[in-house]
Amino acid sequence: MSIQSFIPPHRILMGPGPSDISPQVLQALSRPTVGHLDPLFIAMMDELKALLKYAFQTENEFTIAVSAPGSAGMETCFVNLIEPGDKVIVCRNGVFGERMRENVVRAGGEAVVIDDEWGKPVSIDKVEQALAQHSDAKVLAFVHAETSTGALTDAQALGALAKQHEVLTIVDAVTSLGGVPLKVDDWQLDAVYSGSQKCLSCVPGLSPVTLSPKAIEKIKNRTTPVQSWFLDQSLVLGYWSGEGKRSYHHTAPVNSLYALHEALLILKNEGLENAWQRHAIMHQKLKVGLEKMGFEFVVDEASRLPQLNAIYIPEGIDEAAVRSRLLEEFNLEIGAGLGALAGKAWRIGLMGYGARNENVSLCLRALEETMS
Amino acid sequence: MSIQSFIPPHRILMGPGPSDISPQVLQALSRPTVGHLDPLFIAMMDELKALLKYAFQTENEFTIAVSAPGSAGMETCFVNLIEPGDKVIVCRNGVFGERMRENVVRAGGEAVVIDDEWGKPVSIDKVEQALAQHSDAKVLAFVHAETSTGALTDAQALGALAKQHEVLTIVDAVTSLGGVPLKVDDWQLDAVYSGSQKCLSCVPGLSPVTLSPKAIEKIKNRTTPVQSWFLDQSLVLGYWSGEGKRSYHHTAPVNSLYALHEALLILKNEGLENAWQRHAIMHQKLKVGLEKMGFEFVVDEASRLPQLNAIYIPEGIDEAAVRSRLLEEFNLEIGAGLGALAGKAWRIGLMGYGARNENVSLCLRALEETMS
Repeated sequence: MSIQSFIPPHRILMGPGPSDISPQVLQALSRPTVGHLDPLFIAMMDELKALLKYAFQTENEFTIAVSAPGSAGMETCFVNLIEPGDKVIVCRNGVFGERMRENVVRAGGEAVVIDDEWGKPVSIDKVEQALAQHSDAKVLAFVHAETSTGALTDAQALGALAKQHEVLTIVDAVTSLGGVPLKVDDWQLDAVYSGSQKCLSCVPGLSPVTLSPKAIEKIKNRTTPVQSWFLDQSLVLGYWSGEGKRSYHHTAPVNSLYALHEALLILKNEGLENAWQRHAIMHQKLKVGLEKMGFEFVVDEASRLPQLNAIYIPEGIDEAAVRSRLLEEFNLEIGAGLGALAGKAWRIGLMGYGARNENVSLCLRALEETMS
Repeated sequence: MSIQSFIPPHRILMGPGPSDISPQVLQALSRPTVGHLDPLFIAMMDELKALLKYAFQTENEFTIAVSAPGSAGMETCFVNLIEPGDKVIVCRNGVFGERMRENVVRAGGEAVVIDDEWGKPVSIDKVEQALAQHSDAKVLAFVHAETSTGALTDAQALGALAKQHEVLTIVDAVTSLGGVPLKVDDWQLDAVYSGSQKCLSCVPGLSPVTLSPKAIEKIKNRTTPVQSWFLDQSLVLGYWSGEGKRSYHHTAPVNSLYALHEALLILKNEGLENAWQRHAIMHQKLKVGLEKMGFEFVVDEASRLPQLNAIYIPEGIDEAAVRSRLLEEFNLEIGAGLGALAGKAWRIGLMGYGARNENVSLCLRALEETMS
């Protein structure tokens, strides 16, 4: 076994995530580790909560980062809010809607699936019908920004519908947080999870989660224990609580939390609205360039995410070979298609620190050189 | 909200973990992030598997790092190996044995608890009796190195007993891996989990796990799905498999895995036996110094962990005030007592990179100055 230190190349990350990371965030990541119960670290966590509340646009007291990737954030919401037998309306218009369904079933819930075509947003009408038909449903679950297709769903409309029918919402905001408007309180959303490695441009491995008072109430009124010890938020509540002593639950990923603090601070200093606008402007430039080259988008303009651009691969192109060349010759990563779009589409990410003018120009030029 | 970049002080970490981290590991942590499906990253993961196999002393093909802290590694072993109704003999001689019991119950298993006094190792005799009495038991679960007390249990003897009675073993090696001998294959252990932030001296947030072919067989023969999607190892198998293309499961915590690779490389270069010896020598020095000061150990010498030294707090001492002074005046962190030992004992860690001569000397001197 002859193994050396791993020295990665400097890639330009324009896939579906992880996204490009600011050197400032990587620097924060490598600061000296302190204990997870150190008073200074606890003060940092309080700031982190405040920054997360800003990013989510919420006053929810329970706004934290789960110590694991976005998939665990998803599972956190489902295993805490769903009790065996609970009926859940699940909207499925891509890979992550299907993963939500899987989570419902594993938590012992009954999933009522509303299907929409891949690349389309979730149909508000269909959800309204389903809510009317299933008056015993407890939860509505949907993906705000489908990472597998680049479709944006109207979370505000679904939030309003859910309130009208008195069901809780579980919302996947993995790819939306920081890239497009997301207003947890205004839109009356209950359990929202995200990922650190998309438009927040932090290292992968953490999942921001916010729970509304109504969601907390549902958790407190459970009659069955949460199936997961690690993700049981009634145990984690004490750990993140700002009041008094932190009780030990698990060892926090200290350095990754430094990085998230720094990434959120960058977002705060830029301003959410400015960040949304930057993503929109960079998308516009990329779109014009791609359309000039003849590419067609998977998602209609009206519901297209600026930060995740799924484009059809022209016929006769060896798609894997193009991606390999981009990586090898330009250190540029773009994403392959996922699920129903595997082999049919590429996904070009413009996320967080990655949504920069120089990245868009390089991407367009490198695609031209590679495909000519 | 006026928040600045978080600049932590340089603490000397001699608590129960996280432990001191080599600057070399922090440097690896902050290298540029690459995509989690990048061919270079996948090659790094193969090396990481090889290094983990060395650390665990195993040829188990399934030897990986779970993308979350040790508590999630524990849960990974339980939710995958236990099916509803399975009887599990759980040895409880500290906080983490109790957490194992909690995991069994949440996975739908039936826990038969064998209690031993806090600070004592698990009694081999009691386990033998329990195995004889419960011939329908499927799994024996125990903690190799109890982080809450510093007691070392004879994992080799328990492994042999388990094989004799044809039950699988789930072993908590969070604090033992890299600090004291642990030989997964020689001792015939089936599911062993650890943490990155103890004697491996990596950042917290990852949990090395190894599963024997027998454990994999049990997972493959399950008749019920694993309750957790995120921790379902039948889904993760494809992700870590060395053969062919990696399928997407979740986004790996890329940078933390760089750090673990580097930390394991340091261990490999030092040599496991040398690392074990270093921990023993540093413990000896600390022990002599502490005993000169009149401290008494919680654990008898025969089953005392060198890397986790629980000592009784002398009467009349304001234990929290001493720990605060150590932190504020010396940047030195030692651990409080946990569970039954809260307020009664301190825990001084000598883990991985933290088990250095200068740390021991500073700790002894700082304790003297603080308590005089």
